[in-house]
Amino acid sequence: MEEQELKPFVIGLDLGGTNSVFGIVDQRGQVLATTSIKTQSYKTVEDFVDAGIEVLKPIIAKVGGISQIKAMGIGAPNGNFYRGTIENAANLVWAHDSVVPLADMFSKRLGIPVGLTNDANAAAIGEMMYGVARGMKDFIMITLGTGVGSGIVVNGQMVYGSDGFAGELGHVTMVRGAEGRSCGCGRKGCLEAYCSATGVARTAREFLQKTKEPSLLRDINLEEITSLDVSIAAGKGDKMALDIFAFTGDMLGAACADFANFSSPEAFVFFGGLTKAGDLLMNPIKAAYAKYVLPTYRDNVKFLVSSLDDAAAAVLGASAIGWEM
Amino acid sequence: MEEQELKPFVIGLDLGGTNSVFGIVDQRGQVLATTSIKTQSYKTVEDFVDAGIEVLKPIIAKVGGISQIKAMGIGAPNGNFYRGTIENAANLVWAHDSVVPLADMFSKRLGIPVGLTNDANAAAIGEMMYGVARGMKDFIMITLGTGVGSGIVVNGQMVYGSDGFAGELGHVTMVRGAEGRSCGCGRKGCLEAYCSATGVARTAREFLQKTKEPSLLRDINLEEITSLDVSIAAGKGDKMALDIFAFTGDMLGAACADFANFSSPEAFVFFGGLTKAGDLLMNPIKAAYAKYVLPTYRDNVKFLVSSLDDAAAAVLGASAIGWEM
Repeated sequence: MEEQELKPFVIGLDLGGTNSVFGIVDQRGQVLATTSIKTQSYKTVEDFVDAGIEVLKPIIAKVGGISQIKAMGIGAPNGNFYRGTIENAANLVWAHDSVVPLADMFSKRLGIPVGLTNDANAAAIGEMMYGVARGMKDFIMITLGTGVGSGIVVNGQMVYGSDGFAGELGHVTMVRGAEGRSCGCGRKGCLEAYCSATGVARTAREFLQKTKEPSLLRDINLEEITSLDVSIAAGKGDKMALDIFAFTGDMLGAACADFANFSSPEAFVFFGGLTKAGDLLMNPIKAAYAKYVLPTYRDNVKFLVSSLDDAAAAVLGASAIGWEM
Repeated sequence: MEEQELKPFVIGLDLGGTNSVFGIVDQRGQVLATTSIKTQSYKTVEDFVDAGIEVLKPIIAKVGGISQIKAMGIGAPNGNFYRGTIENAANLVWAHDSVVPLADMFSKRLGIPVGLTNDANAAAIGEMMYGVARGMKDFIMITLGTGVGSGIVVNGQMVYGSDGFAGELGHVTMVRGAEGRSCGCGRKGCLEAYCSATGVARTAREFLQKTKEPSLLRDINLEEITSLDVSIAAGKGDKMALDIFAFTGDMLGAACADFANFSSPEAFVFFGGLTKAGDLLMNPIKAAYAKYVLPTYRDNVKFLVSSLDDAAAAVLGASAIGWEM
């Protein structure tokens, strides 16, 4: 407590496939300053860290210098909390086939403790500290972005598992056997292959090719359809677009019904681009959950959408790890 | 610690659909004395508790009286740890449609703390304290009996969830849609409908009816086949019986592959009658897991069979809750 009063800020780093956003955050979750670099403009992790330190200097100075900073938290793809490493992250040029001790590297350069976890876990911690999951001890965060990620909180603690890699609910098998869609992980039928933003676009292409039904989506080049196009069309009442959300929500609700058997959460919290669709997506999720779930878990579960501002949420989540160091 | 030295014993109650077995257990997990009553011979829970107290008296006296007993732990179907209740247990005449505060009732009569949880959780705690999961912080216990139960340990703690009912992995949906087998829970396609002892017997009947293939199982009346018959036939090399275990193991392995995404456990621990089949069941489980799981979780997971003596294990597991009171 005393230490936190002496050092009122933490650094959060949201390390994404395109941008790496650094922010300085206070204890109330205010993001006081941000700066960013392009994640993939560096051949080696050393160059990446050098560039990060350079852009951090002025914003650290702005809040009174490094003596004001308690710690740093990093949310990153394939992040391992126990080891502070990024491990074999397919989409990072400087970590696609190696184990990168990023937490240690920043810690040595800044002289403060640095924690690291995967991006969905960071989002869950952010939601627990600053968002709709405040005060909850058992909830499941599901991130619907390019992929489907998850962060699971049980007994008020993140579930990291035996090796630091727990919480990959996007790779639960929803369609078994040969007819399952190919997933980026090399397997078939994963939740992510259907319910990520790219999965929704894929569903749109399948629906358009399967029928002759008229749809606003037919005005768009088939290969260029995105989940945002589906959202916009659904917002205008387009039947096919609504059917695509019904299909997506049905599968997400069925998946949540399975997840409930595991940890009987107080809430499922959804985060990411797809949640912009609002009730168009959330209503089918809730309906499917009620239909498929074991009756024990049916009535007392909340389905929530993250209340955190999109731009700030990932940095906030990452920074929250800093408070726990 | 001091208190434990003063009171060296706990009472465990394994409350099953047929028998309720009481045992007195020391800190090393030695069951010093047991006694039992028929669970269903009582119309009301009051009568059941009265009968329990009567049979407990002599075995409590044997270890030096109630002053030697620290607490009591109960493992029971539909047990709720938070509330110490049995809730709507379909198979118990005196609790099939009500919430029974059994922990409180025994606590008042004995004057010691009493904890209660469901039977699979009790088994997991027993395994963690005395069995193959000693020292593990993240494992999943799967009980293969009349039903399929589970007890999940994360960060060294039981997962009870927001309401005390977490850990019903037997009701994860393995076969979606209308072709899923009907389950006792009223839904379709649950793991339990395929991989419980009764599920295996059902698979045997299906396989026998589907083909004309010769099998030792054809010597048994179709409606009377049990999982033990399948085990015996498989042990003699009967092809159909081996196919039945291959089918069962494949589904259990696929289910474990999904469960790994949740908590990335160090081990899956199997318990219950079906595990008597040994490698006939465990080998197909391991093969299916390796085939279906996300590569991250493939290599460092152990598949173990409970090392606890069957008769003692359930009482031991229940008693283990007593140490935590």
